[in-house]
Amino acid sequence: MKFYEKLRQAAEKNHSWLCIGLDPDLAKIPEHLGTDIDAILRFNRAIIEATSDLVCAYKPNSAFYEGFGPDGWHLLKATIGAVPEHIPVILDFKRGDIGNTASMYAKSAFEHLKADAVTVNPYMGHDSLEPFLEYDDKGVFILCLTSNPSSAQIQKKTILLEEAKEKTDGGKNSSSLYTYIASLSAEWNTNKNIGLVVGGTHADELRQVREIVGDQMPILIPGVGAQGGDPEDSIIAGSNSLGGMAIVNVARGVIYADSGKSFPAASRKAAEFVRDSIVAAIKKKN
Amino acid sequence: MKFYEKLRQAAEKNHSWLCIGLDPDLAKIPEHLGTDIDAILRFNRAIIEATSDLVCAYKPNSAFYEGFGPDGWHLLKATIGAVPEHIPVILDFKRGDIGNTASMYAKSAFEHLKADAVTVNPYMGHDSLEPFLEYDDKGVFILCLTSNPSSAQIQKKTILLEEAKEKTDGGKNSSSLYTYIASLSAEWNTNKNIGLVVGGTHADELRQVREIVGDQMPILIPGVGAQGGDPEDSIIAGSNSLGGMAIVNVARGVIYADSGKSFPAASRKAAEFVRDSIVAAIKKKN
Repeated sequence: MKFYEKLRQAAEKNHSWLCIGLDPDLAKIPEHLGTDIDAILRFNRAIIEATSDLVCAYKPNSAFYEGFGPDGWHLLKATIGAVPEHIPVILDFKRGDIGNTASMYAKSAFEHLKADAVTVNPYMGHDSLEPFLEYDDKGVFILCLTSNPSSAQIQKKTILLEEAKEKTDGGKNSSSLYTYIASLSAEWNTNKNIGLVVGGTHADELRQVREIVGDQMPILIPGVGAQGGDPEDSIIAGSNSLGGMAIVNVARGVIYADSGKSFPAASRKAAEFVRDSIVAAIKKKN
Repeated sequence: MKFYEKLRQAAEKNHSWLCIGLDPDLAKIPEHLGTDIDAILRFNRAIIEATSDLVCAYKPNSAFYEGFGPDGWHLLKATIGAVPEHIPVILDFKRGDIGNTASMYAKSAFEHLKADAVTVNPYMGHDSLEPFLEYDDKGVFILCLTSNPSSAQIQKKTILLEEAKEKTDGGKNSSSLYTYIASLSAEWNTNKNIGLVVGGTHADELRQVREIVGDQMPILIPGVGAQGGDPEDSIIAGSNSLGGMAIVNVARGVIYADSGKSFPAASRKAAEFVRDSIVAAIKKKN
């Protein structure tokens, strides 16, 4: 099954466009779980068990696992393995390298870790993404406009569109780098497995990106919650009535909802709250 | 000791601006070493032993290790540990993520794996690089213009310089994205620990980048050898007479010089050949 189809099925089954970010930090997980690395697996499993009927995807960020060295990779694989088969897992690792090297990263993510999708960095251009895109049943989310404050520094720069082919698109001869990335991504999407990452901290730009890509790809929206983005605004700006799906990712706001023994119930409640505001936003939009 | 100083000392001791890329591929290493993952450690150790008096640095690319999962991380750490203390190790992992996540990557590279320097991707802007730059005794090589053919697609785009501060630099109101990254990097270099990555496949652009950054940072030059860049041209374009150092990275051309039992001697010979052409180029330049 293609990734976007798997994502849609999970979203439909759970009435949810919520993705939970599994970014565990030993300093923040409930104390009673222990302080060793196994505590994190217990933590992740408890969060997944408590929320797997409320999400359309989970998104572990590789950095939070790599920090533990080799054990972290066992942990990441076990975490991905703990997600029910019908829920897709987006491995957030933002890789990008020359062709033969990118192939290694793609193999690691899709074949070894068994992720359903990854995030990638477009700075090196199409040939650095091709080894990921070749896995046509997997999803590839290209960083477009990220949620951090410095994203403006490079991604919002105005670039000149030099080729005739580029200029005819709306007749303009300049655009922002992130909208250029969105246009390129639409062009590269021959395997229908591309998605974009646009931070929830930029609602107007999110609307603009959705207009560029039409309904042909999902947009993954991080930066909601702790970083300041609003889930309802993100859904309204990031989706469209033709079925272009927006996935709102929340990590800290859900996984650290409580530090006591009843943390799974508290995380479930937090997830339900975001899921419900997303459902309300989708209704409002349609 | 600051990274750039450690690099200079190694370069001086070995009369070399050659960096060897430790990117081992089980399908390409000599058969007699075996086919398990330990064979790669034996391979890396043999290459390091045969060449450590001929290089200024080693550069393992993380992808070639991550492909093996958890064992790959043991292998990467053991490989870094096998490099003599006085030779710096540049971990090529091209990471970039929002602040709290980037901190995890920095910790993993510098504290767990004990790398002396890393490569990072600038697409997300300054706050995504800050956690790396805070380690002021470590080196941070920012991707500027990469060696792959698609690098032109984004990195060579013309951008408009909008802020007055930007415009006054030479009076121009536009530049290429990669030269903008070079200028930003010079500005961000308050801890004197930044370097740039510019592919050896772009000699003219390399010269331009060196002009922008003066002598204040080393430039790491991949893409020499198998990818088509020339070591002499790279040194002449990438260094300057004030002491701005260019590091030429060669991987495949050195490590796979021979597939028989005498591969270490063949790799040594290949490394010597490149080192000597680099020395000749430095002399020619000065």
